[in-house]
Amino acid sequence: MTTEQLVEQIKHKKSFLTVGLDVDLNKIPKHLLATEDPIFEFNKAIVDATHHVTVAYKPNTAFYEAYGIDGWKSLKKTIEYINDAYPEVFTIADAKRGDIGNTSTMYAKAFFEDMNFDSVTVAPYMGKDSVEPFLSFEDKHTILLALTSNQGAFDFQTKEVDGVTLYKRVLETSKEWKNSENLMYVVGATKAEYLGDIRKIVPNSFLLVPGVGAQGGSLSEVCKYGMTNEVGLLVNSSRGVIYASNGEDFAQAACIEAEKLQQQMKDIMTDAGI
Amino acid sequence: MTTEQLVEQIKHKKSFLTVGLDVDLNKIPKHLLATEDPIFEFNKAIVDATHHVTVAYKPNTAFYEAYGIDGWKSLKKTIEYINDAYPEVFTIADAKRGDIGNTSTMYAKAFFEDMNFDSVTVAPYMGKDSVEPFLSFEDKHTILLALTSNQGAFDFQTKEVDGVTLYKRVLETSKEWKNSENLMYVVGATKAEYLGDIRKIVPNSFLLVPGVGAQGGSLSEVCKYGMTNEVGLLVNSSRGVIYASNGEDFAQAACIEAEKLQQQMKDIMTDAGI
Repeated sequence: MTTEQLVEQIKHKKSFLTVGLDVDLNKIPKHLLATEDPIFEFNKAIVDATHHVTVAYKPNTAFYEAYGIDGWKSLKKTIEYINDAYPEVFTIADAKRGDIGNTSTMYAKAFFEDMNFDSVTVAPYMGKDSVEPFLSFEDKHTILLALTSNQGAFDFQTKEVDGVTLYKRVLETSKEWKNSENLMYVVGATKAEYLGDIRKIVPNSFLLVPGVGAQGGSLSEVCKYGMTNEVGLLVNSSRGVIYASNGEDFAQAACIEAEKLQQQMKDIMTDAGI
Repeated sequence: MTTEQLVEQIKHKKSFLTVGLDVDLNKIPKHLLATEDPIFEFNKAIVDATHHVTVAYKPNTAFYEAYGIDGWKSLKKTIEYINDAYPEVFTIADAKRGDIGNTSTMYAKAFFEDMNFDSVTVAPYMGKDSVEPFLSFEDKHTILLALTSNQGAFDFQTKEVDGVTLYKRVLETSKEWKNSENLMYVVGATKAEYLGDIRKIVPNSFLLVPGVGAQGGSLSEVCKYGMTNEVGLLVNSSRGVIYASNGEDFAQAACIEAEKLQQQMKDIMTDAGI
Protein backbone atom coordinates (compact mmCIF):
# COMPACT_ATOMS: atom_id res chain seq x y z
CA MET A 1 0.00 0.00 0.00
CA THR A 2 1.26 3.49 -0.79
CA THR A 3 1.33 6.27 1.79
CA GLU A 4 -1.18 8.16 -0.37
CA GLN A 5 -3.65 5.26 -0.13
CA LEU A 6 -3.24 5.21 3.64
CA VAL A 7 -3.91 8.97 3.86
CA GLU A 8 -6.95 8.58 1.63
CA GLN A 9 -8.35 5.88 3.91
CA ILE A 10 -7.76 8.05 6.98
CA LYS A 11 -9.64 10.95 5.41
CA HIS A 12 -12.45 8.71 4.21
CA LYS A 13 -12.99 6.97 7.57
CA LYS A 14 -12.23 10.08 9.60
CA SER A 15 -10.10 7.82 11.74
CA PHE A 16 -6.44 7.04 12.38
CA LEU A 17 -7.18 4.15 14.70
CA THR A 18 -4.90 1.11 14.70
CA VAL A 19 -6.16 -1.93 16.56
CA GLY A 20 -3.53 -4.19 18.08
CA LEU A 21 -4.42 -7.85 17.66
CA ASP A 22 -2.49 -9.14 20.69
CA VAL A 23 -4.44 -12.28 21.36
CA ASP A 24 -3.99 -14.08 24.66
CA LEU A 25 -5.99 -17.31 25.02
CA ASN A 26 -6.40 -16.56 28.73
CA LYS A 27 -8.27 -13.35 27.95
CA ILE A 28 -10.59 -14.18 25.06
CA PRO A 29 -14.20 -15.31 25.57
CA LYS A 30 -14.40 -18.88 26.81
CA HIS A 31 -16.89 -20.01 24.15
CA LEU A 32 -14.28 -19.45 21.43
CA LEU A 33 -11.91 -22.00 22.95
CA ALA A 34 -14.07 -24.81 21.59
CA THR A 35 -13.50 -23.69 17.99
CA GLU A 36 -10.76 -25.16 15.82
CA ASP A 37 -8.72 -21.95 15.73
CA PRO A 38 -9.76 -19.68 18.61
CA ILE A 39 -7.15 -17.01 17.84
CA PHE A 40 -8.29 -16.65 14.26
CA GLU A 41 -11.99 -16.73 15.18
CA PHE A 42 -11.39 -14.00 17.74
CA ASN A 43 -9.46 -11.85 15.26
CA LYS A 44 -12.01 -12.35 12.50
CA ALA A 45 -14.85 -11.26 14.75
CA ILE A 46 -12.90 -8.22 16.00
CA VAL A 47 -11.94 -7.18 12.48
CA ASP A 48 -15.47 -7.66 11.12
CA ALA A 49 -16.82 -5.53 13.96
CA THR A 50 -14.28 -2.70 13.81
CA HIS A 51 -12.97 -2.35 10.23
CA HIS A 52 -15.35 0.53 9.38
CA VAL A 53 -13.60 2.78 11.92
CA THR A 54 -10.11 1.22 11.86
CA VAL A 55 -7.39 2.11 9.36
CA ALA A 56 -4.78 -0.42 10.44
CA TYR A 57 -4.48 -3.75 12.26
CA LYS A 58 -1.33 -4.60 14.16
CA PRO A 59 -0.81 -8.16 15.34
CA ASN A 60 2.18 -8.40 17.67
CA THR A 61 4.05 -11.51 16.53
CA ALA A 62 5.06 -12.46 20.10
CA PHE A 63 1.49 -13.44 20.93
CA TYR A 64 1.45 -15.85 17.98
CA GLU A 65 4.95 -17.26 18.38
CA ALA A 66 4.10 -18.14 21.97
CA TYR A 67 1.62 -20.71 20.61
CA GLY A 68 4.19 -22.28 18.30
CA ILE A 69 3.28 -23.47 14.84
CA ASP A 70 -0.45 -23.23 15.58
CA GLY A 71 0.12 -19.59 16.47
CA TRP A 72 1.85 -18.91 13.17
CA LYS A 73 -1.01 -20.57 11.33
CA SER A 74 -3.46 -18.29 13.15
CA LEU A 75 -1.36 -15.25 12.24
CA LYS A 76 -1.22 -16.23 8.59
CA LYS A 77 -4.97 -16.89 8.46
CA THR A 78 -5.57 -13.51 10.12
CA ILE A 79 -3.48 -11.50 7.66
CA GLU A 80 -4.94 -13.39 4.71
CA TYR A 81 -8.45 -12.71 5.96
CA ILE A 82 -7.79 -8.98 6.39
CA ASN A 83 -6.13 -8.71 2.97
CA ASP A 84 -9.02 -10.55 1.28
CA ALA A 85 -11.98 -9.02 3.08
CA TYR A 86 -10.69 -5.50 3.74
CA PRO A 87 -7.84 -4.81 1.32
CA GLU A 88 -8.05 -1.06 1.98
CA VAL A 89 -6.86 -1.56 5.58
CA PHE A 90 -3.16 -1.07 6.36
CA THR A 91 -1.46 -3.98 8.12
CA ILE A 92 1.46 -3.90 10.55
CA ALA A 93 3.52 -6.89 11.67
CA ASP A 94 4.66 -5.71 15.08
CA ALA A 95 7.74 -7.90 15.10
CA LYS A 96 10.58 -5.55 16.15
CA ARG A 97 13.07 -7.47 14.02
CA GLY A 98 16.55 -6.45 12.84
CA ASP A 99 19.73 -8.35 11.97
CA ILE A 100 22.79 -8.13 9.70
CA GLY A 101 22.04 -7.40 6.04
CA ASN A 102 21.26 -10.73 4.38
CA THR A 103 19.40 -11.89 7.48
CA SER A 104 17.20 -8.79 7.55
CA THR A 105 16.35 -9.57 3.93
CA MET A 106 15.03 -12.95 5.10
CA TYR A 107 12.85 -11.25 7.71
CA ALA A 108 11.60 -8.76 5.12
CA LYS A 109 10.65 -11.64 2.83
CA ALA A 110 8.84 -13.39 5.68
CA PHE A 111 6.62 -10.40 6.45
CA PHE A 112 6.35 -8.59 3.11
CA GLU A 113 6.20 -11.57 0.76
CA ASP A 114 5.18 -14.75 2.60
CA MET A 115 2.64 -12.95 4.82
CA ASN A 116 1.99 -9.89 2.62
CA PHE A 117 1.94 -7.34 5.45
CA ASP A 118 2.12 -3.67 4.41
CA SER A 119 4.66 -2.89 7.11
CA VAL A 120 6.85 -4.29 9.87
CA THR A 121 8.34 -2.78 13.02
CA VAL A 122 12.16 -2.89 13.20
CA ALA A 123 14.66 -2.17 16.00
CA PRO A 124 17.44 0.31 15.12
CA TYR A 125 20.28 -0.92 17.37
CA MET A 126 22.24 -2.64 14.57
CA GLY A 127 22.16 0.42 12.29
CA LYS A 128 21.90 1.15 8.61
CA ASP A 129 22.68 -2.20 7.02
CA SER A 130 20.18 -3.95 9.30
CA VAL A 131 17.32 -1.65 8.22
CA GLU A 132 17.96 -0.87 4.55
CA PRO A 133 17.05 -4.41 3.39
CA PHE A 134 13.51 -3.75 4.67
CA LEU A 135 13.39 -0.34 2.96
CA SER A 136 14.12 -1.76 -0.47
CA PHE A 137 10.64 -3.29 -0.86
CA GLU A 138 8.34 -1.10 -2.98
CA ASP A 139 5.10 0.12 -1.37
CA LYS A 140 6.10 -1.56 1.90
CA HIS A 141 6.84 0.41 5.06
CA THR A 142 9.40 -0.02 7.81
CA ILE A 143 8.36 1.32 11.19
CA LEU A 144 11.53 2.01 13.14
CA LEU A 145 11.52 2.05 16.94
CA ALA A 146 12.41 5.59 18.02
CA LEU A 147 10.94 6.33 21.45
CA THR A 148 8.95 3.47 22.91
CA SER A 149 6.12 3.69 25.43
CA ASN A 150 7.71 1.62 28.21
CA GLN A 151 9.77 2.65 31.23
CA GLY A 152 12.88 1.03 29.74
CA ALA A 153 12.87 3.74 27.04
CA PHE A 154 14.73 5.88 29.59
CA ASP A 155 17.59 3.36 29.88
CA PHE A 156 19.12 4.18 26.50
CA GLN A 157 16.72 5.99 24.13
CA THR A 158 16.61 9.27 26.05
CA LYS A 159 20.31 9.30 26.93
CA GLU A 160 22.47 11.91 25.21
CA VAL A 161 24.66 10.65 22.37
CA ASP A 162 27.25 13.22 21.33
CA GLY A 163 24.93 15.93 22.59
CA VAL A 164 21.70 14.59 21.06
CA THR A 165 19.40 12.03 22.67
CA LEU A 166 19.68 8.57 21.16
CA TYR A 167 16.13 8.49 19.79
CA LYS A 168 16.70 11.80 18.00
CA ARG A 169 19.93 10.46 16.57
CA VAL A 170 18.03 7.42 15.32
CA LEU A 171 15.53 9.74 13.61
CA GLU A 172 18.21 11.96 12.09
CA THR A 173 20.50 9.14 10.99
CA SER A 174 17.73 7.04 9.47
CA LYS A 175 16.62 9.93 7.26
CA GLU A 176 19.88 9.51 5.35
CA TRP A 177 19.34 5.84 4.57
CA LYS A 178 18.42 4.61 1.10
CA ASN A 179 14.65 4.58 0.42
CA SER A 180 14.07 6.42 3.70
CA GLU A 181 10.74 7.60 2.29
CA ASN A 182 9.51 4.13 3.29
CA LEU A 183 10.22 4.83 6.97
CA MET A 184 7.67 5.43 9.70
CA TYR A 185 8.53 5.59 13.42
CA VAL A 186 7.23 4.21 16.71
CA VAL A 187 6.71 6.96 19.29
CA GLY A 188 4.94 6.10 22.53
CA ALA A 189 1.90 8.13 23.55
CA THR A 190 3.11 8.08 27.14
CA LYS A 191 5.78 10.57 26.03
CA ALA A 192 3.53 12.95 24.08
CA GLU A 193 5.51 16.01 25.13
CA TYR A 194 8.46 14.69 23.11
CA LEU A 195 6.40 14.76 19.91
CA GLY A 196 7.03 18.44 19.23
CA ASP A 197 10.77 17.84 19.08
CA ILE A 198 10.25 14.73 16.98
CA ARG A 199 8.22 16.68 14.43
CA LYS A 200 11.11 19.11 14.01
CA ILE A 201 13.20 16.19 12.74
CA VAL A 202 10.58 14.18 10.81
CA PRO A 203 7.87 16.74 9.97
CA ASN A 204 5.88 14.54 7.61
CA SER A 205 6.63 10.91 8.50
CA PHE A 206 3.88 8.70 9.82
CA LEU A 207 4.22 7.92 13.52
CA LEU A 208 2.82 4.74 15.02
CA VAL A 209 1.73 5.68 18.52
CA PRO A 210 1.13 2.92 21.06
CA GLY A 211 0.25 3.58 24.67
CA VAL A 212 -3.05 5.48 24.41
CA GLY A 213 -5.52 4.05 26.91
CA ALA A 214 -4.25 1.10 28.91
CA GLN A 215 -0.72 2.51 29.13
CA GLY A 216 -1.95 5.99 30.08
CA GLY A 217 -1.25 8.15 27.02
CA SER A 218 -3.66 10.92 26.01
CA LEU A 219 -5.06 11.11 22.47
CA SER A 220 -5.51 14.88 22.54
CA GLU A 221 -1.94 15.43 23.76
CA VAL A 222 -0.58 13.16 21.03
CA CYS A 223 -2.52 15.05 18.37
CA LYS A 224 -1.62 18.46 19.77
CA TYR A 225 2.10 17.80 19.36
CA GLY A 226 2.23 15.16 16.63
CA MET A 227 -0.50 15.67 14.02
CA THR A 228 0.40 16.90 10.53
CA ASN A 229 -1.74 18.34 7.70
CA GLU A 230 -2.37 14.80 6.56
CA VAL A 231 -2.74 13.48 10.11
CA GLY A 232 0.56 11.52 9.98
CA LEU A 233 -0.44 9.41 12.99
CA LEU A 234 -1.54 5.83 13.53
CA VAL A 235 -2.76 5.66 17.11
CA ASN A 236 -2.90 2.14 18.47
CA SER A 237 -5.23 0.64 21.01
CA SER A 238 -4.99 -3.03 21.84
CA ARG A 239 -6.48 -4.17 25.16
CA GLY A 240 -8.94 -1.26 25.41
CA VAL A 241 -10.67 -2.38 22.23
CA ILE A 242 -10.21 -6.13 21.89
CA TYR A 243 -10.85 -6.99 25.54
CA ALA A 244 -13.72 -4.54 26.08
CA SER A 245 -15.79 -7.58 27.03
CA ASN A 246 -14.94 -11.23 27.43
CA GLY A 247 -18.50 -12.40 27.04
CA GLU A 248 -20.34 -13.47 23.92
CA ASP A 249 -20.82 -9.77 23.09
CA PHE A 250 -17.04 -9.21 22.80
CA ALA A 251 -17.10 -8.10 19.17
CA GLN A 252 -19.97 -5.72 19.74
CA ALA A 253 -18.18 -4.27 22.78
CA ALA A 254 -15.00 -3.87 20.72
CA CYS A 255 -17.03 -2.07 18.07
CA ILE A 256 -18.41 0.37 20.65
CA GLU A 257 -14.92 1.14 22.02
CA ALA A 258 -13.45 1.53 18.53
CA GLU A 259 -16.29 3.84 17.52
CA LYS A 260 -15.72 5.96 20.64
CA LEU A 261 -12.07 6.39 19.70
CA GLN A 262 -13.00 7.12 16.09
CA GLN A 263 -15.47 9.77 17.20
CA GLN A 264 -12.72 11.50 19.19
CA MET A 265 -10.42 11.28 16.18
CA LYS A 266 -13.10 12.62 13.86
CA ASP A 267 -13.65 15.61 16.17
CA ILE A 268 -9.93 16.32 16.28
CA MET A 269 -9.66 16.05 12.49
CA THR A 270 -12.66 18.32 12.02
CA ASP A 271 -11.24 20.91 14.41
CA ALA A 272 -7.98 20.77 12.44
CA GLY A 273 -9.85 21.21 9.17
CA ILE A 274 -8.74 17.85 7.75
CA MET B 1 21.35 -25.78 30.94
CA THR B 2 23.47 -24.19 33.63
CA THR B 3 26.58 -22.17 32.87
CA GLU B 4 28.60 -24.82 34.75
CA GLN B 5 27.35 -27.54 32.39
CA LEU B 6 28.31 -25.40 29.41
CA VAL B 7 31.82 -24.86 30.81
CA GLU B 8 32.14 -28.59 31.49
CA GLN B 9 31.21 -29.38 27.90
CA ILE B 10 33.75 -26.85 26.59
CA LYS B 11 36.52 -28.41 28.69
CA HIS B 12 35.50 -31.93 27.69
CA LYS B 13 35.34 -31.24 23.95
CA LYS B 14 38.27 -28.81 24.01
CA SER B 15 36.11 -26.60 21.85
CA PHE B 16 34.03 -23.46 22.09
CA LEU B 17 32.67 -23.72 18.58
CA THR B 18 29.12 -22.62 17.84
CA VAL B 19 27.72 -23.60 14.48
CA GLY B 20 25.14 -21.26 12.98
CA LEU B 21 22.33 -23.17 11.28
CA ASP B 22 21.35 -20.46 8.79
CA VAL B 23 19.80 -22.61 6.13
CA ASP B 24 19.13 -21.13 2.70
CA LEU B 25 17.43 -23.50 0.25
CA ASN B 26 19.41 -21.89 -2.59
CA LYS B 27 22.68 -22.96 -1.00
CA ILE B 28 22.10 -26.51 0.25
CA PRO B 29 22.93 -29.58 -1.84
CA LYS B 30 20.42 -30.12 -4.64
CA HIS B 31 19.75 -33.77 -3.77
CA LEU B 32 18.18 -32.72 -0.46
CA LEU B 33 15.48 -30.68 -2.17
CA ALA B 34 13.67 -33.90 -3.09
CA THR B 35 13.20 -34.83 0.59
CA GLU B 36 10.06 -33.96 2.52
CA ASP B 37 11.81 -31.42 4.77
CA PRO B 38 15.10 -30.34 3.16
CA ILE B 39 15.92 -27.80 5.90
CA PHE B 40 15.60 -30.39 8.66
CA GLU B 41 17.45 -33.06 6.69
CA PHE B 42 20.29 -30.62 6.09
CA ASN B 43 20.45 -29.59 9.76
CA LYS B 44 20.29 -33.18 10.98
CA ALA B 45 23.18 -34.21 8.75
CA ILE B 46 25.25 -31.18 9.80
CA VAL B 47 24.57 -31.78 13.50
CA ASP B 48 25.32 -35.50 13.27
CA ALA B 49 28.61 -34.74 11.53
CA THR B 50 29.81 -31.91 13.80
CA HIS B 51 28.37 -32.44 17.31
CA HIS B 52 31.56 -34.07 18.64
CA VAL B 53 33.49 -30.80 18.18
CA THR B 54 30.62 -28.32 18.59
CA VAL B 55 29.36 -27.00 21.93
CA ALA B 56 26.41 -24.96 20.64
CA TYR B 57 24.07 -24.72 17.67
CA LYS B 58 22.58 -21.40 16.70
CA PRO B 59 19.72 -21.34 14.20
CA ASN B 60 18.93 -17.79 13.11
CA THR B 61 15.13 -17.58 13.14
CA ALA B 62 15.01 -15.29 10.09
CA PHE B 63 16.04 -18.14 7.83
CA TYR B 64 13.12 -20.22 9.07
CA GLU B 65 10.49 -17.47 9.16
CA ALA B 66 11.28 -16.70 5.53
CA TYR B 67 9.80 -20.10 4.65
CA GLY B 68 6.61 -19.48 6.59
CA ILE B 69 4.90 -22.21 8.56
CA ASP B 70 7.01 -24.91 6.89
CA GLY B 71 10.10 -23.05 8.08
CA TRP B 72 8.84 -22.99 11.67
CA LYS B 73 8.14 -26.70 11.48
CA SER B 74 11.71 -27.29 10.31
CA LEU B 75 13.05 -25.16 13.17
CA LYS B 76 10.98 -27.04 15.73
CA LYS B 77 12.08 -30.42 14.34
CA THR B 78 15.68 -29.24 14.42
CA ILE B 79 15.67 -28.11 18.05
CA GLU B 80 13.80 -31.25 19.11
CA TYR B 81 16.33 -33.40 17.30
CA ILE B 82 19.29 -31.67 18.94
CA ASN B 83 17.69 -31.83 22.40
CA ASP B 84 16.91 -35.54 21.99
CA ALA B 85 20.07 -36.76 20.32
CA TYR B 86 22.66 -34.44 21.88
CA PRO B 87 21.20 -33.01 25.09
CA GLU B 88 24.66 -31.89 26.26
CA VAL B 89 24.86 -29.31 23.46
CA PHE B 90 23.86 -25.71 24.21
CA THR B 91 21.22 -24.21 21.90
CA ILE B 92 20.76 -20.59 20.88
CA ALA B 93 17.70 -19.13 19.17
CA ASP B 94 19.26 -16.23 17.30
CA ALA B 95 16.06 -14.22 17.21
CA LYS B 96 17.11 -10.72 18.34
CA ARG B 97 13.72 -10.15 19.97
CA GLY B 98 12.69 -7.52 22.51
CA ASP B 99 9.39 -5.77 23.34
CA ILE B 100 7.51 -4.24 26.26
CA GLY B 101 7.28 -6.40 29.38
CA ASN B 102 4.32 -8.74 28.92
CA THR B 103 5.15 -9.13 25.24
CA SER B 104 8.74 -10.12 25.96
CA THR B 105 7.32 -12.75 28.29
CA MET B 106 5.43 -14.20 25.31
CA TYR B 107 8.66 -14.34 23.28
CA ALA B 108 10.46 -15.96 26.20
CA LYS B 109 7.76 -18.61 26.41
CA ALA B 110 8.01 -19.23 22.66
CA PHE B 111 11.73 -19.93 22.76
CA PHE B 112 12.31 -21.27 26.28
CA GLU B 113 9.12 -23.31 26.73
CA ASP B 114 7.50 -24.13 23.39
CA MET B 115 10.84 -24.71 21.62
CA ASN B 116 13.01 -25.50 24.67
CA PHE B 117 16.05 -23.52 23.56
CA ASP B 118 18.72 -22.89 26.22
CA SER B 119 19.11 -19.27 25.18
CA VAL B 120 17.84 -16.50 22.95
CA THR B 121 19.44 -13.35 21.55
CA VAL B 122 17.72 -10.11 22.55
CA ALA B 123 18.09 -6.48 21.38
CA PRO B 124 18.65 -3.91 24.17
CA TYR B 125 17.08 -0.78 22.63
CA MET B 126 13.89 -0.92 24.73
CA GLY B 127 15.76 -1.26 28.02
CA LYS B 128 15.33 -3.06 31.32
CA ASP B 129 11.66 -4.03 31.26
CA SER B 130 12.02 -5.51 27.77
CA VAL B 131 14.87 -7.80 28.85
CA GLU B 132 14.09 -8.81 32.44
CA PRO B 133 11.16 -11.07 31.41
CA PHE B 134 13.69 -13.25 29.58
CA LEU B 135 16.05 -13.25 32.56
CA SER B 136 13.45 -14.66 34.92
CA PHE B 137 13.59 -18.17 33.43
CA GLU B 138 15.77 -20.51 35.46
CA ASP B 139 18.75 -22.13 33.70
CA LYS B 140 17.94 -20.21 30.54
CA HIS B 141 20.25 -17.55 29.12
CA THR B 142 19.62 -14.22 27.47
CA ILE B 143 22.27 -13.12 25.01
CA LEU B 144 22.07 -9.35 24.72
CA LEU B 145 23.32 -7.54 21.63
CA ALA B 146 26.22 -5.36 22.71
CA LEU B 147 28.59 -4.76 19.79
CA THR B 148 27.53 -6.47 16.59
CA SER B 149 29.77 -7.58 13.73
CA ASN B 150 28.20 -5.48 10.97
CA GLN B 151 29.13 -2.04 9.62
CA GLY B 152 25.91 -0.57 11.06
CA ALA B 153 27.33 -1.15 14.57
CA PHE B 154 29.10 2.19 14.08
CA ASP B 155 25.80 4.06 13.54
CA PHE B 156 24.75 3.96 17.19
CA GLN B 157 26.58 1.29 19.25
CA THR B 158 29.97 2.98 19.20
CA LYS B 159 28.65 6.52 19.66
CA GLU B 160 29.33 8.20 23.00
CA VAL B 161 26.40 8.36 25.41
CA ASP B 162 27.10 10.73 28.30
CA GLY B 163 30.80 10.08 27.81
CA VAL B 164 30.61 6.30 27.42
CA THR B 165 29.99 4.45 24.16
CA LEU B 166 26.48 3.05 23.84
CA TYR B 167 27.56 -0.60 23.79
CA LYS B 168 29.52 -0.09 27.03
CA ARG B 169 26.52 1.59 28.59
CA VAL B 170 24.41 -1.43 27.57
CA LEU B 171 26.92 -3.72 29.29
CA GLU B 172 27.10 -1.60 32.45
CA THR B 173 23.39 -0.95 32.73
CA SER B 174 22.37 -4.55 32.10
CA LYS B 175 24.60 -5.76 34.94
CA GLU B 176 22.20 -4.05 37.34
CA TRP B 177 19.11 -5.87 36.07
CA LYS B 178 17.39 -8.60 38.04
CA ASN B 179 18.82 -12.09 37.40
CA SER B 180 21.66 -10.53 35.40
CA GLU B 181 23.70 -13.69 36.06
CA ASN B 182 21.62 -15.16 33.19
CA LEU B 183 23.07 -12.64 30.72
CA MET B 184 25.55 -13.32 27.97
CA TYR B 185 26.51 -10.79 25.27
CA VAL B 186 26.95 -10.67 21.50
CA VAL B 187 30.30 -9.14 20.53
CA GLY B 188 31.40 -9.30 16.91
CA ALA B 189 34.79 -10.82 16.08
CA THR B 190 35.31 -8.11 13.47
CA LYS B 191 35.88 -5.74 16.39
CA ALA B 192 38.25 -7.93 18.44
CA GLU B 193 40.28 -4.95 19.67
CA TYR B 194 37.23 -3.81 21.63
CA LEU B 195 37.19 -7.05 23.62
CA GLY B 196 39.77 -5.87 26.15
CA ASP B 197 37.56 -2.95 27.15
CA ILE B 198 34.52 -5.21 27.25
CA ARG B 199 36.27 -7.62 29.62
CA LYS B 200 36.87 -4.72 32.04
CA ILE B 201 33.08 -4.37 32.36
CA VAL B 202 31.97 -8.02 32.16
CA PRO B 203 35.05 -10.01 33.20
CA ASN B 204 33.32 -13.39 33.46
CA SER B 205 30.23 -13.30 31.24
CA PHE B 206 30.01 -15.56 28.24
CA LEU B 207 30.39 -13.71 24.94
CA LEU B 208 28.82 -15.03 21.75
CA VAL B 209 31.20 -14.02 18.99
CA PRO B 210 29.97 -14.05 15.39
CA GLY B 211 32.06 -12.88 12.46
CA VAL B 212 35.02 -15.29 12.56
CA GLY B 213 35.73 -16.55 9.05
CA ALA B 214 33.32 -15.32 6.37
CA GLN B 215 33.02 -11.87 7.97
CA GLY B 216 36.78 -11.54 8.45
CA GLY B 217 37.30 -11.84 12.23
CA SER B 218 40.38 -13.61 13.64
CA LEU B 219 40.04 -16.40 16.19
CA SER B 220 43.41 -15.74 17.79
CA GLU B 221 42.68 -12.02 18.18
CA VAL B 222 39.32 -12.78 19.77
CA CYS B 223 40.90 -15.17 22.25
CA LYS B 224 43.81 -12.84 23.00
CA TYR B 225 41.45 -10.10 24.19
CA GLY B 226 38.33 -11.98 25.21
CA MET B 227 39.15 -15.37 26.75
CA THR B 228 38.67 -15.97 30.48
CA ASN B 229 39.92 -18.72 32.82
CA GLU B 230 36.87 -20.74 31.87
CA VAL B 231 37.06 -19.70 28.20
CA GLY B 232 33.92 -17.53 28.40
CA LEU B 233 33.53 -17.50 24.63
CA LEU B 234 31.21 -19.10 22.14
CA VAL B 235 32.74 -18.48 18.73
CA ASN B 236 30.29 -18.87 15.89
CA SER B 237 30.87 -20.02 12.35
CA SER B 238 27.94 -20.40 9.98
CA ARG B 239 28.70 -20.38 6.26
CA GLY B 240 32.31 -21.54 6.65
CA VAL B 241 31.14 -24.81 8.19
CA ILE B 242 27.67 -25.56 6.83
CA TYR B 243 28.40 -24.59 3.22
CA ALA B 244 31.91 -26.08 3.04
CA SER B 245 30.58 -28.18 0.15
CA ASN B 246 27.25 -28.22 -1.66
CA GLY B 247 27.76 -31.71 -3.04
CA GLU B 248 26.70 -35.03 -1.57
CA ASP B 249 29.73 -34.84 0.73
CA PHE B 250 28.41 -31.65 2.43
CA ALA B 251 28.22 -33.16 5.93
CA GLN B 252 31.69 -34.67 5.68
CA ALA B 253 33.05 -31.32 4.46
CA ALA B 254 31.33 -29.55 7.34
CA CYS B 255 32.91 -32.03 9.74
CA ILE B 256 36.38 -31.30 8.34
CA GLU B 257 35.91 -27.52 8.71
CA ALA B 258 34.47 -27.86 12.22
CA GLU B 259 37.36 -30.12 13.24
CA LYS B 260 39.86 -27.59 11.88
CA LEU B 261 38.31 -24.87 14.02
CA GLN B 262 38.18 -27.16 17.03
CA GLN B 263 41.88 -28.00 16.60
CA GLN B 264 42.71 -24.28 16.66
CA MET B 265 40.55 -23.84 19.76
CA LYS B 266 42.13 -26.84 21.45
CA ASP B 267 45.62 -25.41 20.81
CA ILE B 268 44.58 -22.04 22.23
CA MET B 269 43.04 -23.68 25.31
CA THR B 270 46.12 -25.83 25.81
CA ASP B 271 48.42 -22.81 25.54
CA ALA B 272 46.24 -21.06 28.12
CA GLY B 273 46.39 -24.08 30.43
CA ILE B 274 42.64 -24.72 30.36
